[in-house]
Amino acid sequence: MITSTSNQQVKTVIRLQNYAKERKAQHAFLAEGIRLLQEIPVKWLLKVYVSESFCNHPQYLPLYNSYMDGGVECIPVSDAVFKRMSGTQAPQGILGIVRQPVYRLADLLQGSGTHLLVLEGVQDPGNLGTIFRTGEGAGVTGVVMDAQCVDVFAPKTVRATMGSICRVPFYQAEDLLETIQEIKRHQVTVYAAHIQGEQMYDAFDYRKGTAFLIGNEGNGLTQQALGQADAYLRIPMCGRLESLNAAMAAGILVYEANRQRRSP
Amino acid sequence: MITSTSNQQVKTVIRLQNYAKERKAQHAFLAEGIRLLQEIPVKWLLKVYVSESFCNHPQYLPLYNSYMDGGVECIPVSDAVFKRMSGTQAPQGILGIVRQPVYRLADLLQGSGTHLLVLEGVQDPGNLGTIFRTGEGAGVTGVVMDAQCVDVFAPKTVRATMGSICRVPFYQAEDLLETIQEIKRHQVTVYAAHIQGEQMYDAFDYRKGTAFLIGNEGNGLTQQALGQADAYLRIPMCGRLESLNAAMAAGILVYEANRQRRSP
Repeated sequence: MITSTSNQQVKTVIRLQNYAKERKAQHAFLAEGIRLLQEIPVKWLLKVYVSESFCNHPQYLPLYNSYMDGGVECIPVSDAVFKRMSGTQAPQGILGIVRQPVYRLADLLQGSGTHLLVLEGVQDPGNLGTIFRTGEGAGVTGVVMDAQCVDVFAPKTVRATMGSICRVPFYQAEDLLETIQEIKRHQVTVYAAHIQGEQMYDAFDYRKGTAFLIGNEGNGLTQQALGQADAYLRIPMCGRLESLNAAMAAGILVYEANRQRRSP
Repeated sequence: MITSTSNQQVKTVIRLQNYAKERKAQHAFLAEGIRLLQEIPVKWLLKVYVSESFCNHPQYLPLYNSYMDGGVECIPVSDAVFKRMSGTQAPQGILGIVRQPVYRLADLLQGSGTHLLVLEGVQDPGNLGTIFRTGEGAGVTGVVMDAQCVDVFAPKTVRATMGSICRVPFYQAEDLLETIQEIKRHQVTVYAAHIQGEQMYDAFDYRKGTAFLIGNEGNGLTQQALGQADAYLRIPMCGRLESLNAAMAAGILVYEANRQRRSP
């Protein structure tokens, strides 16, 4: 059992909590708590740390057994050490180091079935996580992010995805404009929500290959990204509202596409 | 200029930041920052506090003039005192005490035009605020909350509404079941999202009086609330998703109602 916070493994976990750079260097991210860990495929797990108290928790036994079967090392640590490793204020006592999945853009494209969310500079981890979660629900084939988006592997983002990060393919574009052009070459129509959009979002046909551009929370889409869109759409806003939350706008669009694709 | 944190007004603001009880006793809440204050009707403002530095801010002049015209007292405080009064880590330097609006349930009911969100135990201030914001966008006629919902006047909630709290009528039900029954007596059909719903949410006609029940983030709706629903609906979920975020579910439903009501 690890009882010292100066242990190298403990230090590594703390760095993985705090630094995107470390997560990138290690090709890994953290998943904490029973509920989230149950969503992580066992073969993606590199290591699991459990607090001394948690070892006696009834919910640990089935997890422990599945980790044993999968050959995942479970390392007990003292409660005090776990508290230091944890990213939450009231830790449950279980935390895993997870291998980052890697996708190619081609993995997100399914010809006429393509249904993408393309994010430019989404900054809030909660929003990014909610976009993954809602995207999975609506059946998107992938999420594309530019380099200005918040780190998808940040603990807050991972938590907000509720496990969708393990199931929704995603692609981090080094050059977003180039990536959008590549997407357009694959029978995909690119839509941007814009106040100047003349047609309502539900006036378009999303049953063919579709990608929705979603911009930064405060500033929306850049002119360059808007310039790449095949069409502008408008989400109606009653009252005196100026904008919707970025994740909400994404959710309304992908569920409209889902609705159309269910219809005969 | 107030320069001491032991000033009674400063103490009152700090209590309004921290305690729902104080907000209730004073029939008031706080709105902080330029952007949010611009959304607050001048006649709802009881007092405005500005930091010494903010008095020189160019954006303060138009606000100051509108407050002068409206007879709202603007009280300068030292930067150090403002920092203590503020609920944010990087205060802009302007904060108002706002009178709580009061509505009767009847104000939310518009016969066949009624479009309500009825919330049971929504706990996250960000979710509650987002529900107001999205509800305004979709044109809801009101938001009903039970006593277990987080305080709608909490600073985090108010911030997340982006000003919708001043424009969307709401009603805090002491007895939610009784309130739902009252709503049903006004030609309003009550829908509950439920995993056992046999029909998709877009299979119902929301052009008539409509109310959507939204439950607690972790536990959903109680059996009692479910028992009051006229119909169960299902929001489809692809992948392995178990649920959507409460605010997202609300947004998808009210925007579907908005879509139907726009259609001929």
